[in-house]
Amino acid sequence: MELKNFIVDIPNYPKPGVIFRDITPILNNPPVFKMVVDQLAAYAITQQATVIIAPEARGFLFGPTVSYAANLRFVPVRKLGKLPRQVVSAKYSYEYATNQLEMHVEDLKQNDRVLIVDDVLATGGTAQAICQLVQNKQATIVGLAFVVDLTYLNGKKDLGGYPIKDRIKN
Amino acid sequence: MELKNFIVDIPNYPKPGVIFRDITPILNNPPVFKMVVDQLAAYAITQQATVIIAPEARGFLFGPTVSYAANLRFVPVRKLGKLPRQVVSAKYSYEYATNQLEMHVEDLKQNDRVLIVDDVLATGGTAQAICQLVQNKQATIVGLAFVVDLTYLNGKKDLGGYPIKDRIKN
Repeated sequence: MELKNFIVDIPNYPKPGVIFRDITPILNNPPVFKMVVDQLAAYAITQQATVIIAPEARGFLFGPTVSYAANLRFVPVRKLGKLPRQVVSAKYSYEYATNQLEMHVEDLKQNDRVLIVDDVLATGGTAQAICQLVQNKQATIVGLAFVVDLTYLNGKKDLGGYPIKDRIKN
Repeated sequence: MELKNFIVDIPNYPKPGVIFRDITPILNNPPVFKMVVDQLAAYAITQQATVIIAPEARGFLFGPTVSYAANLRFVPVRKLGKLPRQVVSAKYSYEYATNQLEMHVEDLKQNDRVLIVDDVLATGGTAQAICQLVQNKQATIVGLAFVVDLTYLNGKKDLGGYPIKDRIKN
């Protein structure tokens, strides 16, 4: 069960020069999805996380399930204007666009220990913005976990030295 | 543990006259999230589903976790242009906008038995479009499951008489 076989590379998507990593085949195979989720949940427990945070939309494919498996709280991060209550915000730019991410102010406590989860680490813009949201609430970041790390984009370099778990580097 | 206490009504969001039901507090409470997911997973097993389908973004907060808990495949439905491989498409209109939903052609097989999962049943436009995508692949819809059913909008009336499970009606 080689995880790489469940990630499809799509050249020139969504724009020329970008190779999109499609992780949806993982979800179409229950043992593979369970393996990925259980490893991320075990990492959350090792890091003594109290909360899992993930961004829409593809981060939602993994984050809530990791929180379920590890019996931890889940806090969603969404794009501008999608969360209805009072939010904290952070601007970000990523591989092929810019936007603003938001998190409900009251979802996170100062003594929380946060594991940030997403499908792919590319340039790290999204992850940096989520780190800002957590830091704004003075909670502790105990790690970041990704299914795929596009190491050639060196997204790790601006992530503040936090522990990073990645399942696949390429 | 009254589920209703974990759903916040936001009047006039995202536009005047709409009451938005914010289900994110469910995810901030592990026993409540587990209760909701386990009930949806039990329903999937009762209906002998082989696949869970949910739409972005808020459907992703529940669908993949239900598939994990029930040991079933998960197939994502996304908005126009977000899925990189060959798709089937269906137009839809909902409470306050219109869009087009897409699903990867090869994710669903003709003998699949599908449970459609989403957070809120409002006018039913999204659910109708997902039914069209499933019907396009000639798979069987065994039910639709929602955390909240806004019964005053009567979203059920155009959902083809499929079995519907809802946790909360209001």
